[in-house]
Amino acid sequence: MSCCVGEPVPRRVLLVSAHPEPRSFHAALRATAVEELESQGCIVTVSDLYAMRFKATVDHSDFPAPDTHEPLNVSLAQRRSWKDGSLAADIQTELNHLLEADLLLLMFPLWWFGMPAILKGWIDRVFLSGVVYSRSAVFELGRLAGKTALVAVTTGAPSQAYGPNSLNGEMNDILMPLQRGVLGFTGMQVLPPFVGYQVPYVGDEGRADILAEWRLYLRGMNDLVPLVMPRLADHGDALGVGVRAN
Amino acid sequence: MSCCVGEPVPRRVLLVSAHPEPRSFHAALRATAVEELESQGCIVTVSDLYAMRFKATVDHSDFPAPDTHEPLNVSLAQRRSWKDGSLAADIQTELNHLLEADLLLLMFPLWWFGMPAILKGWIDRVFLSGVVYSRSAVFELGRLAGKTALVAVTTGAPSQAYGPNSLNGEMNDILMPLQRGVLGFTGMQVLPPFVGYQVPYVGDEGRADILAEWRLYLRGMNDLVPLVMPRLADHGDALGVGVRAN
Repeated sequence: MSCCVGEPVPRRVLLVSAHPEPRSFHAALRATAVEELESQGCIVTVSDLYAMRFKATVDHSDFPAPDTHEPLNVSLAQRRSWKDGSLAADIQTELNHLLEADLLLLMFPLWWFGMPAILKGWIDRVFLSGVVYSRSAVFELGRLAGKTALVAVTTGAPSQAYGPNSLNGEMNDILMPLQRGVLGFTGMQVLPPFVGYQVPYVGDEGRADILAEWRLYLRGMNDLVPLVMPRLADHGDALGVGVRAN
Repeated sequence: MSCCVGEPVPRRVLLVSAHPEPRSFHAALRATAVEELESQGCIVTVSDLYAMRFKATVDHSDFPAPDTHEPLNVSLAQRRSWKDGSLAADIQTELNHLLEADLLLLMFPLWWFGMPAILKGWIDRVFLSGVVYSRSAVFELGRLAGKTALVAVTTGAPSQAYGPNSLNGEMNDILMPLQRGVLGFTGMQVLPPFVGYQVPYVGDEGRADILAEWRLYLRGMNDLVPLVMPRLADHGDALGVGVRAN
């Protein structure tokens, strides 16, 4: 990440974590990530959403500006509140962390083929229309271009359950709405996901193996080839843009 | 839905709705659904999650049983609390609605390529391990077999944005984690989704057209061919099962 003469600029990491139990294996994976990334010289900010009791739902209180008689249009309210600096404080704080980060690391247990609601709510609330994307600024032109993102999940089922033609479906298909629809869409490079499979059933030794693999993954991540994303340039006048319906 | 001599048994519908604004177009679509389904003789229960201030996040308070010194394992806690009747009251109420329903209708604006967090939270909390599925009871053997499900979404982008090779991706791929991973996985027949495209930009006339299409969709839905789902029988000893990681 160094670009200047003198000391290299430390890489800033925002680690967003979503698990209700501080004594979970998820917490051990998170601690490993913090330790490993700090040992690489990164500055790591952790948003532990459950510990923060992060509000999961977008609603009127996110936009405490005066025109409360208007029906809530979330996209418009996000753009207006960002512009006039009237966003709810918790959103502003998380947004600042996001904009400062070089690497966004999302860690969660896979619940019903997706993110726990508290993490989806973090995206719904913090990924502001007009800030992280706009009509003509998505994918390679997205406002978060230059950043890297990485999803780290744990599962109940074994790896075979997420292979080609598997019962559960392929992991990258399951993660498509997040990896492509959120992270790629806003311009981030998305690394292949890290998956800790079958964590409730692998025992202490299996869990130690997953922690070791996770550490190796983080050590080698700069050599990983990012996932292929669509390019706005290949899609004419970008009819596709618009991710929030009313 | 009639199977007996005498009066036909009315079809029970659970309509779960997730939008923060009661004056939204979403609310008009919801009202149309209630009116049309009731005119067909259905008994409709509406869970308007924002109006109910439905709690979106799974946490310890969902399981108010005494063994609070144990680390929270969500799947185990769900199974135990269901068995001993100690689930949080709001979960139990929604679960009863779900188990009584013949048709589950999920209505939401597409936010960041998925459900608003409050609806994901409804699934995380109400789709209980051991009740709606178990290790050997998924897809055609799922515990919700016999029920039908239907997703109705609104989008900001136009229909071309969700076609083959589009910038946003195909709608059924975007909805895969929900339609296949949640609804099909638990045994429900899943009808093709209803999509109201580009609702912020189509004007009053365009919105009236979408309402009319929605009504026609609901009138004709018994003739729709459900989406193809995987079959447990085609997957050996069901290695794939297990949807909640710790």
